[in-house]
Amino acid sequence: MVVYKPESAEQGAALGRAMHGLATELFPICRSITGDGVRQTLGIIKRELPDLQIFEVPSGTPCFDWVVPNEWNIRDAYILDPSGQKIVDFKQNNLHVVGYSVPVEGSFALKELRAHLYTQPERPDAIPYVTSYYKEHWGFCLPYRQYRALPSGTYRVKIDTTLQPGSLTYGEILMPGASEREVLLSTYVCHPSLANNELSGPVVTIALAKWLAEQPRRYSYRIVFIPETIGSIYYLSRHLDHLKRTVDAGFVVTCVGDDRAYSYMPSRLGGTLADRAALHALRHSGHDFTRYSFLDRGSDERQYCSPGVDLPVASLMRSKYATYPEYHSSDDDLSLITPAGLQGGFKMLQRAIESIEANRRYRTTTLCEPSLSQRGLDPAIGTNDAAEAVRDMMTILAYADGNHDLLHVAEMLNVPVAQLAETAARLQQQNLLAEIG
Amino acid sequence: MVVYKPESAEQGAALGRAMHGLATELFPICRSITGDGVRQTLGIIKRELPDLQIFEVPSGTPCFDWVVPNEWNIRDAYILDPSGQKIVDFKQNNLHVVGYSVPVEGSFALKELRAHLYTQPERPDAIPYVTSYYKEHWGFCLPYRQYRALPSGTYRVKIDTTLQPGSLTYGEILMPGASEREVLLSTYVCHPSLANNELSGPVVTIALAKWLAEQPRRYSYRIVFIPETIGSIYYLSRHLDHLKRTVDAGFVVTCVGDDRAYSYMPSRLGGTLADRAALHALRHSGHDFTRYSFLDRGSDERQYCSPGVDLPVASLMRSKYATYPEYHSSDDDLSLITPAGLQGGFKMLQRAIESIEANRRYRTTTLCEPSLSQRGLDPAIGTNDAAEAVRDMMTILAYADGNHDLLHVAEMLNVPVAQLAETAARLQQQNLLAEIG
Amino acid sequence: MVVYKPESAEQGAALGRAMHGLATELFPICRSITGDGVRQTLGIIKRELPDLQIFEVPSGTPCFDWVVPNEWNIRDAYILDPSGQKIVDFKQNNLHVVGYSVPVEGSFALKELRAHLYTQPERPDAIPYVTSYYKEHWGFCLPYRQYRALPSGTYRVKIDTTLQPGSLTYGEILMPGASEREVLLSTYVCHPSLANNELSGPVVTIALAKWLAEQPRRYSYRIVFIPETIGSIYYLSRHLDHLKRTVDAGFVVTCVGDDRAYSYMPSRLGGTLADRAALHALRHSGHDFTRYSFLDRGSDERQYCSPGVDLPVASLMRSKYATYPEYHSSDDDLSLITPAGLQGGFKMLQRAIESIEANRRYRTTTLCEPSLSQRGLDPAIGTNDAAEAVRDMMTILAYADGNHDLLHVAEMLNVPVAQLAETAARLQQQNLLAEIG
Repeated sequence: MVVYKPESAEQGAALGRAMHGLATELFPICRSITGDGVRQTLGIIKRELPDLQIFEVPSGTPCFDWVVPNEWNIRDAYILDPSGQKIVDFKQNNLHVVGYSVPVEGSFALKELRAHLYTQPERPDAIPYVTSYYKEHWGFCLPYRQYRALPSGTYRVKIDTTLQPGSLTYGEILMPGASEREVLLSTYVCHPSLANNELSGPVVTIALAKWLAEQPRRYSYRIVFIPETIGSIYYLSRHLDHLKRTVDAGFVVTCVGDDRAYSYMPSRLGGTLADRAALHALRHSGHDFTRYSFLDRGSDERQYCSPGVDLPVASLMRSKYATYPEYHSSDDDLSLITPAGLQGGFKMLQRAIESIEANRRYRTTTLCEPSLSQRGLDPAIGTNDAAEAVRDMMTILAYADGNHDLLHVAEMLNVPVAQLAETAARLQQQNLLAEIG
Repeated sequence: MVVYKPESAEQGAALGRAMHGLATELFPICRSITGDGVRQTLGIIKRELPDLQIFEVPSGTPCFDWVVPNEWNIRDAYILDPSGQKIVDFKQNNLHVVGYSVPVEGSFALKELRAHLYTQPERPDAIPYVTSYYKEHWGFCLPYRQYRALPSGTYRVKIDTTLQPGSLTYGEILMPGASEREVLLSTYVCHPSLANNELSGPVVTIALAKWLAEQPRRYSYRIVFIPETIGSIYYLSRHLDHLKRTVDAGFVVTCVGDDRAYSYMPSRLGGTLADRAALHALRHSGHDFTRYSFLDRGSDERQYCSPGVDLPVASLMRSKYATYPEYHSSDDDLSLITPAGLQGGFKMLQRAIESIEANRRYRTTTLCEPSLSQRGLDPAIGTNDAAEAVRDMMTILAYADGNHDLLHVAEMLNVPVAQLAETAARLQQQNLLAEIG
Repeated sequence: MVVYKPESAEQGAALGRAMHGLATELFPICRSITGDGVRQTLGIIKRELPDLQIFEVPSGTPCFDWVVPNEWNIRDAYILDPSGQKIVDFKQNNLHVVGYSVPVEGSFALKELRAHLYTQPERPDAIPYVTSYYKEHWGFCLPYRQYRALPSGTYRVKIDTTLQPGSLTYGEILMPGASEREVLLSTYVCHPSLANNELSGPVVTIALAKWLAEQPRRYSYRIVFIPETIGSIYYLSRHLDHLKRTVDAGFVVTCVGDDRAYSYMPSRLGGTLADRAALHALRHSGHDFTRYSFLDRGSDERQYCSPGVDLPVASLMRSKYATYPEYHSSDDDLSLITPAGLQGGFKMLQRAIESIEANRRYRTTTLCEPSLSQRGLDPAIGTNDAAEAVRDMMTILAYADGNHDLLHVAEMLNVPVAQLAETAARLQQQNLLAEIG
């Protein structure tokens, strides 16, 4: 794996624009945790990543404490006001319909209708994002300002949906590496027209998969595009033993598209390779970042890190879900995420992955310091770079006791682990280091 | 056990007054580590707690490095000045006589007498509290101001005491609970007319025992009223194996009567259930408190926490012994302790005990998060209380891995453990949690 | 061992002057990692310490990754300028010749010569100290100011050295103590005319050896005078098993002669007895000190603490190598080290050694606190010293659980461990403590 090889600014910008373009293509699709929106989304992802395997899990399939729900599809939905004017229209914005709304057609007095209307008073011009997956219900979401101005009278309402046995759809790629040890990337494809949370996750994950495909890989990469919660629960219910045996690190890829912040969410107990790599990437990025607690969790780490599952999964984000004002509203749109924001999210995850690839555990092959001069490892005297190179070399050797991995040494020296990895490789070539397990 | 059920302000105040009333009744009795003063005191305690068992341990009984001393009793003691006036009188204040003074009757020149007089120059109007349990001696204590003004001449002195084989007296109650695991409360009854240190300990312990008697108890409660040091040493010498097997937490109840401070004294190594419950109670009390070191120890934790004994015993106090100016002098009187002070000491210990009762260790019964909605545990959307309830529920589940107990989760969430205990009980009823051990 | 018995100020000053005098005698000798300069130095050390054993290790002897190099000796070396004037003369200062220079005799244009000249531009009047042990090379060192003023023309150069099979010379003393457990002192004798780094190390070590010879010793002391790096590597290659079995603590004695700072360099992982004793000595010295990281290492701790060797070796220094401006230049001369500076270095190491000698691990012989009064250990009431004595006694007993050694208790109480050692000895005499291990 080529580590920390910075693309040119131009290549980086092009990648950012490409990701934003893909998000723009995916944006209008009405996704949910099941249904044709997910299938259409996975179809586009498969176009980008032809190795993607797509799975259909029948409604009613039990998984741990849950059952795969009925499949939901929607054709149309609207509200006509007393004057017959269409004031809320699913075709204008798919956030207008409460996700998983059951079909309805009829007339309602304003007062009756209100029990089915959702707004966000503190953000009066935005349409909030609301779902009711597991309680049969119907509803509309609309700006609070519009809601407040509704005249009394009789409203005609139509929601043309189906909620019936079908299946839950998800996608998976396994990219084999030199080792069968795995890194897991998990992102979700269940949010309708929302951008940072959540189209940024799938588009950055696609970019990471394309990048990984071009690299020699030490680790194998397992990448899943699933609906949040029920998707990860189903996936874990079928693959837990394998994952517990093989996954050394994983990331939930979510909220990686705006350009306002970097964020870190630890695994449940912290300190896993994923946590260490994420923090290492952030610390050496030159960017400030916010360190959240697992108490602030909110996405699929809730499943991956649950007791008895305990996979080493952390999150590296831009502005974290539930912390920014546009969250779960129509304001989380394509203007909120930017090419530069997506590029930053991509790069940070790339660096964390590179750190994992670069990290190794060594033991010295000789007692005491080796003689560098007899091997020509002693650089010409005098330059600062040379002094740093010798310092790196000697410190790698000094801590090559089988207990301290390269990431540990890198943190001690406050340098990127990739810098040490090259030095360590040279020492290994000279038979001064032996890799462990 | 009903946890954190606050009595009404009126009930609380009544309890405070009742405790102060009992202290007032006990105050005049001349207690020591043995003798009729202890018996009389235990008699009053047995009137309050009829299940109290009273034990007599014969003088000369060996216990670890010690031997139960002779029994001491006093009828009278005084000093007549050269003019024949009674200037120091045991009947005015029992602190006037050095505890365990041997009998004496005779005339002494002032200079000879001075070798037997004790004062506290930095507190010139107070009578200090002095004892000489293990070295045969006699003496009087008096205000420094009075001492300085003694005219020269011949003084008549009488101390009418007995120091001869008898017994050491102590009391014990065992209040069985659902489990045989025990909580130990230890308080001492060897101080004469002193109030914060030490009548507050026995009166608050009596109140705790009465309160515990009315509760369903998970733990069994072992409560001892003993003389300090020799009492706990004797008690441990006879019950150590049992205590080491069964005691999960214990408190030395001492200095719980004034209204100026809250204090915490850890067990020797800290971190026991008693330490954690004490700190939890203090942190969630809304009061500031002082955290002492075990180096500041001074009461029966010296024995309970000694190497090889190592019981999980901490102290929760108001103003700690040896830190307040009236300590061990006649100024530590019934005006120093207040109904509110005693009430505060009682409440803090009550909360620590409630925290111990509320603390449990769980494991989830399902992998991944359970489906709350299918169980009706998902509260109506929208209120902040509901959000907190869900957060509590999900966090209890997230840490129900067998390693983190409820106290740990409560400290993470910064909420009282009793709040979590109710939520955990609901989850257990729904078979989502299984209690461990 | 008599601990913390301060010599009189006069005795201390006399010791400082004696150490400085010995440094003055040793200063002119041209030492290197092999050769007659080392032999002559060890001869003087043997005059001071007649039990010193001197060893010769033949060139070509393999040791771990290394081979003992050829022996280097020098008779003369100089540069004649174009006018025939001797402008650089080994006989004026042995730093003028790059250590291990191969012989050369010839004429060189200034430009050719420059490739063999070394200066220190940031310290333009000083001769730098340069060596080339493992790459065949020759060179001269001179002040930058002189170097800049060299006229062009042809220079005559002569270096009259031999570099051929011979041996590496080192010295060792083992001073047996009551136990076979060892303390290691390691210092180096390979630097030519340099004072803080490094004649201070040998002269302070000689003083420590003389002092130790007069003390009853609990530990055995192994003291080595070796060339840096190759000396410690050779020594470890022959004695590692023994050292790993017997050494409880060790110090590299280096840079202990100036009067500007105190410094501490930890062992690789820290926390060894040597680290704890060094920090204890420093903390209770009343002096400020700098705490370096093992990343700042630079002397034989690089070998003693290397993975798999891992001896408990730390360094207690005055101004640490590579941190003071005169380091490795002719300004590190006899005016840089002072009698007071050497005396301070000696004292700090003495205190660390005393702390090691004083440190013991105990277990109480009785459960609960013992009865001090029946043993006369209860001092007369009232003085502050007595209160401190009782506090020390009770705290030693409270932590005599087999896990906390006296150094630990001393750090808790913030007192010198030697103070506790006397108290602990008294408790042991009274059979209240039993020593462990």
